Amino acid sequence: MSVTFPRGFVASAGTAGIKGDGRDDLALVATSDGTPVPAAAVFTTNLAAAAPVLVSREHLERSSGRAASLIVNSGNANAGTGRRGRDDAERICKEVAGLLGVESSDVLICSTGIIGKPLPIERISRALPKLVERRSDSREQAMSAASAIMTTDTRRKEVTVSAEGFSIGGMAKGAAMLAPNMATMLAVLTTDANMEPEQLRKALKNSVDRSFNAISVDGCTSTNDTVIVLASGKAGPVPYDRFEEALTEACLELAEMMVADAEGGSVVFTVEVVGAFSDAEARQAARRVTESLLVKCSMNGADPYWGRIMSELGSAGVHLVPDTLEIAYGGVVVCRGGVEVEHDGEAVKAHMSSKRIEVRCDLGIGMGRAVMKGADLGHGYIEENRGTS
Amino acid sequence: MSVTFPRGFVASAGTAGIKGDGRDDLALVATSDGTPVPAAAVFTTNLAAAAPVLVSREHLERSSGRAASLIVNSGNANAGTGRRGRDDAERICKEVAGLLGVESSDVLICSTGIIGKPLPIERISRALPKLVERRSDSREQAMSAASAIMTTDTRRKEVTVSAEGFSIGGMAKGAAMLAPNMATMLAVLTTDANMEPEQLRKALKNSVDRSFNAISVDGCTSTNDTVIVLASGKAGPVPYDRFEEALTEACLELAEMMVADAEGGSVVFTVEVVGAFSDAEARQAARRVTESLLVKCSMNGADPYWGRIMSELGSAGVHLVPDTLEIAYGGVVVCRGGVEVEHDGEAVKAHMSSKRIEVRCDLGIGMGRAVMKGADLGHGYIEENRGTS
Repeated sequence: MSVTFPRGFVASAGTAGIKGDGRDDLALVATSDGTPVPAAAVFTTNLAAAAPVLVSREHLERSSGRAASLIVNSGNANAGTGRRGRDDAERICKEVAGLLGVESSDVLICSTGIIGKPLPIERISRALPKLVERRSDSREQAMSAASAIMTTDTRRKEVTVSAEGFSIGGMAKGAAMLAPNMATMLAVLTTDANMEPEQLRKALKNSVDRSFNAISVDGCTSTNDTVIVLASGKAGPVPYDRFEEALTEACLELAEMMVADAEGGSVVFTVEVVGAFSDAEARQAARRVTESLLVKCSMNGADPYWGRIMSELGSAGVHLVPDTLEIAYGGVVVCRGGVEVEHDGEAVKAHMSSKRIEVRCDLGIGMGRAVMKGADLGHGYIEENRGTS
Repeated sequence: MSVTFPRGFVASAGTAGIKGDGRDDLALVATSDGTPVPAAAVFTTNLAAAAPVLVSREHLERSSGRAASLIVNSGNANAGTGRRGRDDAERICKEVAGLLGVESSDVLICSTGIIGKPLPIERISRALPKLVERRSDSREQAMSAASAIMTTDTRRKEVTVSAEGFSIGGMAKGAAMLAPNMATMLAVLTTDANMEPEQLRKALKNSVDRSFNAISVDGCTSTNDTVIVLASGKAGPVPYDRFEEALTEACLELAEMMVADAEGGSVVFTVEVVGAFSDAEARQAARRVTESLLVKCSMNGADPYWGRIMSELGSAGVHLVPDTLEIAYGGVVVCRGGVEVEHDGEAVKAHMSSKRIEVRCDLGIGMGRAVMKGADLGHGYIEENRGTS
C-alpha cells in the first residue's frame, strides 16, 4: 500500500523508456481530489543540486508549503544539465499540473539516475497523460510506483504505520550505505494526519535526523537526495508529538531497508558510541568509525581489529582519552582502558561471522550517545561502482 | 645512502624478531660523534597517539629540540598498549642512550605495525647492543635501515638532495594513499645544514604541508605518523629559504614514492583544483574529490564519470556555482558551465587507461589553487585490508 495507505492519496507508475530496459521509470503521487495539502521536504545540501531539487524547492516556497502532486523519474538524475535541466523539470511539473487541474507550483519533482545527460523530455511528456489517468488508491498502483523509483536497489522499499486515529505510508529508493556521498536517496511519505506546513517541516526534519542521517549518509549528500511528506488532513487533528514519533518510525524503517540493500554490501554493522562528551560528539565519532574504509574492510573480512576503531576515534575530532576507552564486539569487551584485555576470542569470532556486527565504544567521558549503521566494503562494491554502465 | 648522505650521521639495522619472518625490524640513526644536534618533528594529531609518539614528543621538549639518535621498530606500533607501552618505549630509549653515552631525552623513537599488542621488549633489548655497535656511515647500513622500517611497502623509499654547500638525506615507509587514516607514515630526514631548532621546526612544518599533506592523508592521521629531521650542522650556515626549499624537495620525493606504492593500488591520479575562492578552499575541494570512494572506484574502472567529481565538489563545503564549473580529464574538457560538452571521447578513454590520470577542476570563482594525489580503489585494496594477518 505504502503511499496510498493513508486516506486521501492516489498513485501510479508509467514508462517513458528512460532506463532503456522497459522497466517503469515514472511514479506519481497525488491527492485524491486534486487539492493542494500541506507538504514539507528535506533536500540535499549539495551546491551542485540537481534541477528537480531547485524546482521543487522553489515550488514549495511559492505555494507556502503546499502540494497536490509529486512526480518522480528514475534512470536520469537531471543533474549537471544546467538551464535546460531546469526548463525540463519545470515543463514536466507544468504538464502534470495541467492534467490534474492545479497550479505548476503545486507539483513537486524528483529525479534519480545518471548525472550529466539531458532528460528524454519528449518521451516523458508523451507518457504523462497515461500516468496521470492511471492514478488510483489501489495497493497495486502504490506498489508499481515504489518499483518505478528503484535504480540499483534490489528490493522495493515500502512502509506503513498505523497510529491512533491516523496513518503514514511511504516508499523509498536508495542503497546509500556503501556510497554515502553519491547514491541518491529518495523517500516519499504520505499521511492523513492534519498538520500545518510548519509542524510538518519540523516533524520531518527531526525524523530525518534520527533515521536517514543515522545511516552512513554524511552531510555531503548527493545532487538529488530528497525526502518529501504530504499531509491530506483526512484523519483530523493529531497530537504533534504522537505524529513526529510515527513519522520517525516510518523513516527509520525505510532507512534500515536501505542499509540492508546496500550496493554490493553483505554485512550490516552498527556502531554505538556511548560515554562521549556530548550527543553531537558521539554522532561525529560514530560517523567517523562507520565511514572508515579500513573499518568497512575489516567488517568484510570479519576481523575484530579494535586498533582500527581506536585510531578512528582518536582522529574523529572529539574528546578522547585512551585510558577510559572501552571497545566491544557483539557485547564482548576486547579493549578496556585503551589496551587489549583477555576475552573470549571464539565468541567474538562467531559474532563477526554473523553478517550483523555490533561495535560498542564507551569513551568513558560524558553522557553523549549515538548509533550509526553502515555496510562493509567488499569486492561487490568495487564491481558495482567501477563503471557507470 | 639516504640518511648517511649528509655529513655527520651513521645508521644501522637489526633484527629483534618482531615481524616473525626473519626480516630486519630495527633501524638506528645517530650523529657520528654522539653529540645531540638540532632536531624537529611533526607528529600525528591522533588523540590515541602511540607510546613512541608520546615519548618522543616529551624527549624533544626536555632536550629543547635536540637529539643524538633515533630508533625505529617495525612490525608492532606500540599503540593501544597503555602505561606498559610508554614504559617499554622509555626503556628502549634509555638503553640506546646508555650504549651511545647520551641522555635518554636525546633519543627519539618511532614504531609502526599492528596496534594493541605489547612489544616483545626483552627481545628488542637483547638486539640493541649489536644494533648500536653496527652503526656506520656506509651506504649499506643506510639501505638496510630503510628496508628495516618497511611494513606493507613493496619498495624501499630513500632520497638524497644535494644543494649548494649542504645536503639532505631521508628514508620513509608508508603506503598512505589508499588508507589515508590508518597506514602509518614515517619519514626520517637528516641534513648537514646548520639550522637552529626553531628554524628546523618551521622548515619541516612547511615542507610537510606541501608534501605528505598533499597526498591523500587527511588531518586524521594514524596513531603513529611521524616525520623527524636531524641537522648535524657540519656544512655550516645555510640561507633559510634555500634550506626549506631543499627539504620540501626531499619530502615531496618521499611522498610521491608513497603514492606510487599504495597498498593494493594500481592507478595514481592527480586532482588539480583551480579557480577556487581561496587556496584553502581549493585544498579542501581537492581532498574531497581525492578521498571519495566513488571517484577512487571510477579511477580503477577508468570511467570518466564527471558527475561524480561535480557531486563531490558540490558537497565539499566550498564556494561553488555549477554555471562556472569546468572539469577536464587529461586536458580534455568534458564539462563546462556545469554541463557536459562535446569532447573527444577517444582521447579521454586513452588517457583514463594510462594508470596516471589527471583531473582538473576549474571552479571559475577565484584564484585558489591546490593539487592532491590519490590512488584508485580496486580489488587489491580489499584483499590487503580485509584482515590483519
